[in-house]
Parts: sequence; structure tokens; C-alpha cells
Amino acid sequence: MNPFPASRLARRMEILKASDIREILKVTQRPEVISFAGGLPAPEFFPARDLGSLTKELLEQEGPKALQYSTTEGHPPLREQIASRLNAHWGTNHTPDEILVTSGSQQGLDLIGKLFLDEGDTVLCESPTYLGAISAWSIFKPTWVEVPTDEEGMDIEALEERLDRCPNAKLVYAIPNFQNPSGRTWSLERRRRFMETVQRRGIPVVEDNPYGELRFEGESLPALKAFDKSGLVIGLGTFSKIFCPGLRLAWLAAEQPFYEKLVILKQGADLHTSTLHQMQMSRYMELHDLDEDVAKIVPVYQERRKAMVEALEADLPPGVRFTRPEGGLFLWLELPERLSARTLLQACLERNVAFVPGGAFFPNGGHENTLRLNYSNMPVERIQEGVRRLTQTIQSLL
Amino acid sequence: MNPFPASRLARRMEILKASDIREILKVTQRPEVISFAGGLPAPEFFPARDLGSLTKELLEQEGPKALQYSTTEGHPPLREQIASRLNAHWGTNHTPDEILVTSGSQQGLDLIGKLFLDEGDTVLCESPTYLGAISAWSIFKPTWVEVPTDEEGMDIEALEERLDRCPNAKLVYAIPNFQNPSGRTWSLERRRRFMETVQRRGIPVVEDNPYGELRFEGESLPALKAFDKSGLVIGLGTFSKIFCPGLRLAWLAAEQPFYEKLVILKQGADLHTSTLHQMQMSRYMELHDLDEDVAKIVPVYQERRKAMVEALEADLPPGVRFTRPEGGLFLWLELPERLSARTLLQACLERNVAFVPGGAFFPNGGHENTLRLNYSNMPVERIQEGVRRLTQTIQSLL
Repeated sequence: MNPFPASRLARRMEILKASDIREILKVTQRPEVISFAGGLPAPEFFPARDLGSLTKELLEQEGPKALQYSTTEGHPPLREQIASRLNAHWGTNHTPDEILVTSGSQQGLDLIGKLFLDEGDTVLCESPTYLGAISAWSIFKPTWVEVPTDEEGMDIEALEERLDRCPNAKLVYAIPNFQNPSGRTWSLERRRRFMETVQRRGIPVVEDNPYGELRFEGESLPALKAFDKSGLVIGLGTFSKIFCPGLRLAWLAAEQPFYEKLVILKQGADLHTSTLHQMQMSRYMELHDLDEDVAKIVPVYQERRKAMVEALEADLPPGVRFTRPEGGLFLWLELPERLSARTLLQACLERNVAFVPGGAFFPNGGHENTLRLNYSNMPVERIQEGVRRLTQTIQSLL
Repeated sequence: MNPFPASRLARRMEILKASDIREILKVTQRPEVISFAGGLPAPEFFPARDLGSLTKELLEQEGPKALQYSTTEGHPPLREQIASRLNAHWGTNHTPDEILVTSGSQQGLDLIGKLFLDEGDTVLCESPTYLGAISAWSIFKPTWVEVPTDEEGMDIEALEERLDRCPNAKLVYAIPNFQNPSGRTWSLERRRRFMETVQRRGIPVVEDNPYGELRFEGESLPALKAFDKSGLVIGLGTFSKIFCPGLRLAWLAAEQPFYEKLVILKQGADLHTSTLHQMQMSRYMELHDLDEDVAKIVPVYQERRKAMVEALEADLPPGVRFTRPEGGLFLWLELPERLSARTLLQACLERNVAFVPGGAFFPNGGHENTLRLNYSNMPVERIQEGVRRLTQTIQSLL
């Protein structure tokens, strides 16, 4: 180890720490561990074979183009396909030139942080909020203001009160569908009122929607963007949960003047996203109906969520609460305040069960009695066995 | 256009502008344009067919793994292959756990900027230097100090003098082999003296080496890293010029404590680089000898450089100087001071010839009488025709 003085690094490095999730995931790669920790989609649905044959064909037909540098904005046919899918699903009205293909939605978050955030700037977010956003933006040293969030979404009165206090807030970050980590979905009425508030005040919104298509029950609701008359909403979307995550293929949708600036920032960050992956995805969508693929995933995740909910209902001691998500990958559990999820995790790891302690999802700390459970990545029997060990451990600690 | 006030963006956006190269490249995508502007490798050497068949096989055998999330550090077998290739070619002694797989070397630059640079920090660089480093780091608002550079590399007296003036300099950035844009290569003696200087002063070095394997003549020289006893050199390397750029597959090689911090920064930037691309590249190197592939590219680029040099020598008026690179993709041309390369470019574009004006490669401006020519991306006849138009235009303007 080089004894390099920390004072000679950038000041932003003082607050940098490794993501809890990714550190825990390393521990849980042992096959005997039942891990509810990750956010991994079910690999048995990845279209590996189809992708393999179309890639071979694509490289035979268009190899020189698919393997060459390409434009920062993204492969034009893919941008068209993304815009038209968004508009079909979410009541938006995007043109292809509002779509910027990114290397994972995580990159979208990084670019947005660069665009908006100076040290001390205010970011408002749901409470809890997505860990990846916290880790992408923390290096810009913003002040995080958590807005109380209930089963219907962000509490609008609480949001107004915080915006009164912070009229120069730079961004509001929200995941309106099957939120990570809470599993909650915003109601239609809440979406409408939220957009009234932010538009009246002219505050940009980052609408992150990685899970929206994975709805098990109830009706799909329009995106926040569908109510946006001021060009304030920047949307993030990804193929990670509806196709596969290994390609790191995602997009952001933004109007001017944000779009052109985000493109320049992406130039500086990685020039462009893999040409081959963009052409693979575009061709896949030409040859296959992605909606049909998603329709095959949904009932399986639904069954897994049902298994998890039922197992929790059966065995959890009183005083432990959890959400019943209408879709997505995650469920959120609240222990009695005296029990820390970090303590619980230590005890669970001894029994080869893992999850993510919820404290990490609160940018200002606290809430150590919460935890996030993922149910998308394993068969029902394993979920039942894992929940059995989890609930037994909770009981033994209470 | 949303009339969003620039004052509500991050302050770093004030200085952000689009890369000259990428804006010019857009104009030059018309097939009738002979473009010396890009840094595109020759697509006829991309191993499209082999990559297609191995991908099909890979996805049949290991699809669920290849399409799933993976670790930030990178695919372990690929990290081993990269470390052992580096050590074989460059006299280094890297272990696989010093290798971080990145989404293009551009991402390596972004991560290094985040690690080291606060507003006003000093970065030393060759003069001229790589435009991509300027665009990656400018958002951190450093002070660029250009070090005069001659045919042997950085001028060590000038470097010492600047380090005396800026003892808290954060980084020195260097491209010792076939530099972009100048085409110059550092001598062995200069490498040794440079490393003595930076180690005596404890200044971290970014050694960018995208072109080093593309040597046409002379002997390969050890990397700066080969002289590094203090863990100060962070190396950047890429598959873009020796395999293909479309995958955006590259790496950085760093010792602790830099490595672990760069990993955390990459987590925040894009979680990890495409799992599939990493496994494709790893398998490609198992099945094929990448050195043999490179050995096929080198004579072709050499012939193209020869054609460009000869055409320039034949027709350039006196008072115009240019470099004769021993490898790589670029040649650097200096016009008489009264002639601006931007004026020349305008006149050339009317004759369907493009290049990058050299001023963009000087972070503090000036040197508008210089330009960069790429010779890797087109057949000899087209190079000859393009140079003919270029030299005629220069003559007509002088």
C-alpha cells in the first residue's frame, strides 16, 4: 500500500464509501447462501439463445459498423424504438431526439449529478430512496432532503413545506412505480399533484422507472412525464429488468436544454455506449415482441412475491410490518425499533440468509430497523426456506 | 426549448463545450468526405465473424451468467489476461487485482478526474495533449499547466520548473507512445528521467497507452510504469485500437490506495462494464492470439502512414512542418503562424476534406496554426487524394 496522503485526493473522496449492497453481494456469491440482497432479475428468462443467433447474423452482415465507434446520442433506430415504447406504455410524447442511450441507468444518474449538483445543493427524494442514486450523487456533496412518503407516494404537503424552506432546490428524485427499496407505487392523484407542485416552482425532476413494466396487479398509471408541460422531467429507463442487465443498456429521456448538455457530459464520460449492444437490442426488438417477453416474466415474479408475502404473513411476529408491492422486485420490512437490521443480518448470515439493511437507503441515516428483500431471483421453495430462516432469526432476537 | 436558467445548473457547466472532434465527425459522415479527422481504426480488421461465432457459443453455454449483473472490478479471467499481456509487452509487474475493467479509456479518465481533481487543482500535461482528457477533466475545473514537449518527450527541465512553481500539482498526464495528437514517442532516457522526477516529488502519473502496440519501426520501450517503485503510475489501456472500439472495452491498472477508490467511483458511474463484452473478449483471447491480429494491422497502418508522409513531402510548401510517427494513428502538422487551421478547415470542407484543427489539443488555447491528421482509416489512394486536396488548399491560402 502506497502511503499516499488522502489530502492529495479530491475533497469529494472524504465521504466516499463502498455500496453496502455490492459489498454484501460479494459475501453472498457462495451458492449455499439464500440471498434476498441483490436486485437481480431471473436469469432463466434472459433470451440468451435468440441473442446469440441474431448476434452472429448481425456481425456477419454489419460487423464493421457494429464494432466501430458511433455517436454519443446512440444508435438512431434504437432511439426510435425506445421513444415509441415509452410513449405506448407511459402516456408520454417523446421524440427519438430526446433519447440518450446510456451505459446503465447508473450512468444516467452520474450525468444528471454532473449537470445539476454543486456542493451543498439540495436534492429532494423519497424516504427511503434508491441506494444507487445516493452513491452516484454523493460525490457531488449535495444536501439530501428526504420527503416523507406513504403508500400513495410522496406526501405533497411535506414536499411543499420543504420546498418553501429550500426554494433553490436543484432536483427532486422519484421512483413512482414499485419503488426500490420500498416496493410502493404512487397513486394517479399523487402524480398529478406532485407535477403541479414542481411545475409551479420550476424544479427539475428525475423520474426513475426501471420496474414499471413488471406490474402484477392493478392498472398501469401514466408517468410523471405525462403531466409535464414545462420540460422539467428527465426520465430514466433501462433494459436491465425487461431484457437483461449484463449489457448495461439503458436510456435517459430529456428535453432541451438538458438533453444537449447531458450528451456533452456523456462524451466526456465514455464517448458512447457499446455500438454492438445497441444494434443487438435494436434487432432483437425488430425480431421479437419485448412486451411478450415481459408478459412471461411477470407471472413468475408475481408468484415469487406471493410466496414471500405468504411466508412472511405466516411466521412474522407481531410488530413487524412489510409492504405488498403491486409489481417490481422488492419488498420492504420494518422491524420493531429496538431491533437493528444490521444485527439481524449478522445473525442471518450465520444461517446463510442475506438481505440489505434498510438504513443504507436513507441518505441522512437512521431507520436501522428496516430492511429490503428481493424476491425475483430464486424459485418459490428457496424463498420459503429463506423466509423461514429469516423469521426464525427475527423471533429469536426479539 | 425550456427557458431553464443556466444559473440553476451546476457551476461546472459554465465551461462545458462539445468536443470539436465529435462535432466535426458528424459533418464528415457523408461518404464523399475524405476525413482525416477521426481516430477510427480500420474496420476491415475487426474480427466480426470470429466474434459472431464465439458469441453464439458463449451465449448457448453461459448465457445466464453472461447476461447477468457482475462485479465492478471486472470478469476475473479477463483481468488475468490483461495483466499478463501488460507485463509481457511493457515490462510491468501487474497482478490481476490491480486491473479495473472500464467502459472505454474515456471512463478511466473520468474516474481519475473524480479521484483527484478539485476546482483549481493543477494538472500537468504534454503540449499538445489528448482532447479526450481535456474534455473528461475540464468539468472538474483544474488549472492545466502545459509542459513543452519535443521529439523525445516531455522536457524534464521544464517539468521541474513547473513543479517548483506548483508543488501541489495533483497529476501528470502523459501518452508516451505515438501520442495523440502529435504522433511523438518518448525516448527511453526521457522516460527514466521523468519517473525520477515524479517519484522524487510524489506526484501521481496517468500513463495513457492506447496505441503502443501499433509500432511500425524501432524498438518497443518499457512503460513509465516499469520504472515506478512508488505506486504512483495509473495506467490506461484499451482494446479499441488492437481489437475494436465499438465494444467500449478498456482497463485501468492501479495500485492501492488508488485502486479501491477507483472501484467505488466506477460503482457510482455505471456499476460495471458489460458482462457479455468482458466474456466475449476473454474467450476471444483464449481462442486467438491477439498479438497475431495486431501483427496484421501494423503493416497496413505503416503503409498508410508512409503514403501520407510521402504525399505531404511531395507537395507541402516550405514552412510547413510535420511529424513522422513510428506508430499509432496520427500525424501532426504545423502551418506557418499566419495561417489558422480553422480557416484551412473551412476551405478544405468545401473540397470534401476534413481534419481536426490543433488548437483544441492545447488546454490553454493558442497554436491555431496546427492540425492533426489520421491515416489509419482509409486506403492509400484515398489518403493520396485527400492530401493532394489539403496541400493544394494550403498553397492557395498561403
